[in-house]
Amino acid sequence: MAGTDNSKDMTIGGPAIILVKPQLGENIGMVARAMLNCGLSRLWLVDPRDGWPNDIAWKTASGADVVLDNVKVFQTVEEAIKDLTLVFATTARPRDIVKPIVTPEQAAIEAQAVPDEQVGFLFGRENWGLDNSATVLANKIINIPLNPAFSSLNLSQAVLLVAYAYLKQSQNTPAEYLSTRRDHDVANQESLLQFYERLEGAIEEHGFFSRVEEKRELMQHSIRSIFARNQLSNQEVNILHGILSALLKIRRPGSKKSQK
Amino acid sequence: MAGTDNSKDMTIGGPAIILVKPQLGENIGMVARAMLNCGLSRLWLVDPRDGWPNDIAWKTASGADVVLDNVKVFQTVEEAIKDLTLVFATTARPRDIVKPIVTPEQAAIEAQAVPDEQVGFLFGRENWGLDNSATVLANKIINIPLNPAFSSLNLSQAVLLVAYAYLKQSQNTPAEYLSTRRDHDVANQESLLQFYERLEGAIEEHGFFSRVEEKRELMQHSIRSIFARNQLSNQEVNILHGILSALLKIRRPGSKKSQK
Repeated sequence: MAGTDNSKDMTIGGPAIILVKPQLGENIGMVARAMLNCGLSRLWLVDPRDGWPNDIAWKTASGADVVLDNVKVFQTVEEAIKDLTLVFATTARPRDIVKPIVTPEQAAIEAQAVPDEQVGFLFGRENWGLDNSATVLANKIINIPLNPAFSSLNLSQAVLLVAYAYLKQSQNTPAEYLSTRRDHDVANQESLLQFYERLEGAIEEHGFFSRVEEKRELMQHSIRSIFARNQLSNQEVNILHGILSALLKIRRPGSKKSQK
Repeated sequence: MAGTDNSKDMTIGGPAIILVKPQLGENIGMVARAMLNCGLSRLWLVDPRDGWPNDIAWKTASGADVVLDNVKVFQTVEEAIKDLTLVFATTARPRDIVKPIVTPEQAAIEAQAVPDEQVGFLFGRENWGLDNSATVLANKIINIPLNPAFSSLNLSQAVLLVAYAYLKQSQNTPAEYLSTRRDHDVANQESLLQFYERLEGAIEEHGFFSRVEEKRELMQHSIRSIFARNQLSNQEVNILHGILSALLKIRRPGSKKSQK
C-alpha cells in the first residue's frame, strides 16, 4: 500500500478507521474520501446496514476507490479489534463509562507511538454515537471539542477531524511558508537596495522628504519595510522598476511640484 | 449573537466564512452545519449560482438555521471583503501568486489577534478552487496540508478544518482528561491501599508470592500499578472488593493450593 509510481503519492495505510453499523452508503463513500485526503486507507466496517459492497459508496468517494476496494467487513466489534493494541472510541462523552478522554490531537500523538496495524479508531453510526458495549472495549475515548450547543457532526466530518489530526502529527508541515512558483527566484538584498535607492532618489527629487526632513530616516525605514516584508522575486523587482520608470516618464513633461 | 438562555450555548459569531460562487445548496447547508459545530455563525455568499435563499441549504444544515438565517449576499468578492483587515484565501497552492502560505492552525493564531468582524476566510466553489482574481486580494493563503496525491476536499470539509482550527485556538481544551460521571468520586489513596493490602494478603495466603519470593516487591509494584493507573472511583473499588470477596468465597471450600 506504500506509494508506488506517482512521485506525489505519499505512503498510505495508517491506523484502521472502523465504522460500527454504518447506515448510508453515501457516508461510507465520504468517509473513504476524507480518509484518503489524510493518507489513510484501511477502512473496516462492522455490520453495515445495507451489506457490502454498496455501489452508492463508490459514487460519493470522489475517486477514493483504493480505500473502498480494500474494505474489510466484520460482524462484531470484538472481531474487528481483536488484533489491535490501541483502540480509540470516537464518541460524545459517555455518562456512565469512566475512561480517559483525549482530543484528536492527543490521540494522534499516542497512535504514532504504536505500529499502524495495531491501532484502530471506532466510529458509531451516522448520528455519531457508539453503543456503550463498543465504547467500553476501547482504551480511550476521543472527544472532539466542539460548540457544546451544536456538536453533532456528520460521520465523515468526524472521521476527517480525527484523520487530519493523525496526518498533521505525522507531518512536519511548517506553520507558515512562502508560495514558491517554479520561477520564483527571490531577489537578493543588492537588487532591493538598488530599487530602494532609485525610489527614494526619485521621490526626493519630487520634494517628498523636504516636507518631512526631520523624519527622513523614519520615513525611509517605513518605505523599505513595505517592500522588504514580501520576499520579492527578481521579476517583481523588475516590475517595480518598470512602474517607477513609467511614473517618472509621465511626470517628467509636467512641472515637478505642480500637483498640490 | 452571543449565547442566550441555553447554559451550554457558547458565544457564536467569529470571523466570516465567505463562499465565492458556491454552486450547490446542499453544500451551503453542510458548510453552515460545520461552521456552527465550531461556533462560527457569519456566513457570506458571493454570487451564489442558484440565488439566495435556497431551500435545499436548510435541509442539509441539520438545524444550523441560525447560520443560514443570517447569511449576507454580495455580488463581488471586493464588496464582501471591503471592511475586513485580515483576509485568508483557502485554496490549493497557486502557481503564479507569491504570497505567504499558512496552515489552518497558523491562520487561527493570526485571526485571533484581530477583531472577529475584521477577519474573513475565502473559499472557492465546490472543486475547492478560488480564482486568482480573488486569491490576490487576500493577505495570506491557507493551504491545508493533505495527502498530495488526493488533496481535493469537499467544500464543507475544507470549511470544517479551517473552522475547527479556529475553535481550538480559542479554547483551552486539555489534551487529555478523565471522563467524569456526576457520581464519579475518585477513590483516595487510603481506599486503594486498603484494597491492595487485602488483595495481596489474599494471594499471599494462596501461595502467590512464595513462588516468586525473590521478586516479591517487584511483583507487588506491578500489581498496584495495574490499578493505580486508572483513577478508580470509590464505586469501582467497592466492585473490586466484591470481586475479591466472591473469588475468596468460591475458593474457600476447596483446598487452598489444589489448582496447579
